[in-house]
Amino acid sequence: MSDASRFVRACRRQPVDATPVWFMRQAGRYLPQYRAVRERHGLLEICKTPALAAEVTVTAVEALGVDAAIIFADLLLPVEPMGMRLRFVKGEGPVLDEPLRTAEAVARLRSDAAAELGYVAESIRLAAQQLGGRVPVIGFSGAPFTLASYMVEGGSSRDFLYTKSLMWRAPEAWAGLMEKICSVLEPYLLSQVEAGAAAVQLFDSWVGCLSEPDYRRYALPYTRRLVQALEARGTPVIHFATGATGLLRAMQEAGASVLGVDWRIPLGRAWEEVGFAPAIQGNLDPAALFAPQDELRFHVEAVQREAAGRPGHIFNLGHGILPETPVENVRAVVEWVHELTSQGQG
Amino acid sequence: MSDASRFVRACRRQPVDATPVWFMRQAGRYLPQYRAVRERHGLLEICKTPALAAEVTVTAVEALGVDAAIIFADLLLPVEPMGMRLRFVKGEGPVLDEPLRTAEAVARLRSDAAAELGYVAESIRLAAQQLGGRVPVIGFSGAPFTLASYMVEGGSSRDFLYTKSLMWRAPEAWAGLMEKICSVLEPYLLSQVEAGAAAVQLFDSWVGCLSEPDYRRYALPYTRRLVQALEARGTPVIHFATGATGLLRAMQEAGASVLGVDWRIPLGRAWEEVGFAPAIQGNLDPAALFAPQDELRFHVEAVQREAAGRPGHIFNLGHGILPETPVENVRAVVEWVHELTSQGQG
Repeated sequence: MSDASRFVRACRRQPVDATPVWFMRQAGRYLPQYRAVRERHGLLEICKTPALAAEVTVTAVEALGVDAAIIFADLLLPVEPMGMRLRFVKGEGPVLDEPLRTAEAVARLRSDAAAELGYVAESIRLAAQQLGGRVPVIGFSGAPFTLASYMVEGGSSRDFLYTKSLMWRAPEAWAGLMEKICSVLEPYLLSQVEAGAAAVQLFDSWVGCLSEPDYRRYALPYTRRLVQALEARGTPVIHFATGATGLLRAMQEAGASVLGVDWRIPLGRAWEEVGFAPAIQGNLDPAALFAPQDELRFHVEAVQREAAGRPGHIFNLGHGILPETPVENVRAVVEWVHELTSQGQG
Repeated sequence: MSDASRFVRACRRQPVDATPVWFMRQAGRYLPQYRAVRERHGLLEICKTPALAAEVTVTAVEALGVDAAIIFADLLLPVEPMGMRLRFVKGEGPVLDEPLRTAEAVARLRSDAAAELGYVAESIRLAAQQLGGRVPVIGFSGAPFTLASYMVEGGSSRDFLYTKSLMWRAPEAWAGLMEKICSVLEPYLLSQVEAGAAAVQLFDSWVGCLSEPDYRRYALPYTRRLVQALEARGTPVIHFATGATGLLRAMQEAGASVLGVDWRIPLGRAWEEVGFAPAIQGNLDPAALFAPQDELRFHVEAVQREAAGRPGHIFNLGHGILPETPVENVRAVVEWVHELTSQGQG
């Protein structure tokens, strides 16, 4: 075995001493250490203050015993220097004022905005330093479709009617928007790698609203461009979506080392869908962390059974940790996954 | 060919002269004729007044030229006589006061409530009479899991934490709840068939939030019981869910003649998933009805291509028609589907 971490080895489908485990949004509101920082600082303030972002990133790793740190940031950060105002509204989540609905609005967006996101790379540098190589740091961003749909809807959406209307009524404006987003994301993600990120995750949280023909026309080419820029430099990309079971075969064509899937498809079925080619990350239902421990253990074992014998499994949730999640259950999952998958224990 | 309708023949995977088409929520707010009735009457009032329910049902068929009428009703109607108060709140949808969260609350529910839902059967009788056999009437209800989760959440939900908590923490209360729902739905759906429904659709709109192991433990047995009671009497059941691509194989075990799928999986892939056994209904993205007609036509043809050569396709949306949908686009889809699939045109 090389001295690469368990996590990076799993991304590359190399043998591991135990299945690596981390959690999306592991440095979040359910964690008392995070809430203590959050009492004194706003969400965007933490993102933009590398010392704070690194602190909450590293604290979560220490509290949980996970195999990777995901940098504390927000998937929407790139929209700000592109020219939109980003706010977080209690109970509603992110809100973008003056959503994009026209070709003119797209034309006004800045595409040279990556330089203003340097604070994320700096946070990664600090976090990697503080972790001293014990576990790798994962960088991330929203994927182009998910960023575009936030920008067009102005917040969360049920039907994505404005997004789809722009795609279908003004395909050139849509292409222009996706190009600009890529022009920001490519240097942004590469700067994260240069700062020490061992892998990056693209969150395509909303892409599951598209049919496969639309995904292929309006989303896949842009995601592929980003994935390939990163993979070409040897950085594994985790390509994650939710509610996108029907898109897995098309998503795989973007070429990421790892596909992240939610609990809506058994892992074995996900591998089958993509011809057993990439590594797969997932896929515990985040709600299961609220279950009594025997029921939680049932769910963890069900995920493990689906992954048994497959090279390249990274244990994670199928979505971010929910706010009221009991910390002791998160810790228990880490221990169980390591125990169930350690060499010699089958 | 027998003299069964195009729609019923397709449910049974028999040859048809053209692919039958209808739309979920085809008698809805987008239709001026419906809005005119709705101005003078509340939503629940229309459901409970057979003359009005039949009127809006039949009007929609006449306005669109579709091959089936779905009776105007609400999937949540059964919860009222079971003992819960149902309201519709503008912009929020259905709200159930005092959601069920405990075994005691489940114990208080009535399971002999079907008799109080006789107005739905009466609406079907009237609608069938008015249609005079030109097109068949489809009955429906929410499926047990979707009804249970509405009752437990009290309205719509993102994470279904209360529902899953009840399932996992109090599995006996959950089973009791699902049994009671089945005890109401079975006679309720059979009464719809006796009144003249040629098929019934079970809307399991929310079941996509479950992992397959949870679906098999907490939802499938109850759906199977209902499906089999209906299919045993020769009534085709359309078993519909959204966001449930990963559950299709398990859903099929309930034994319905028809699976209804959303646009998140290409139809050909859906047939592949279930071994080409049942008929399949779907799956145009309802948002596509807002697209310019050339783009809309692209989507209709893409669905048709996936279905070409398969016996047992019923053309529909992957979800209900959205409120602002242009009526002329709905009509155009009906014409295109008939034109694309008429005998002799391949």
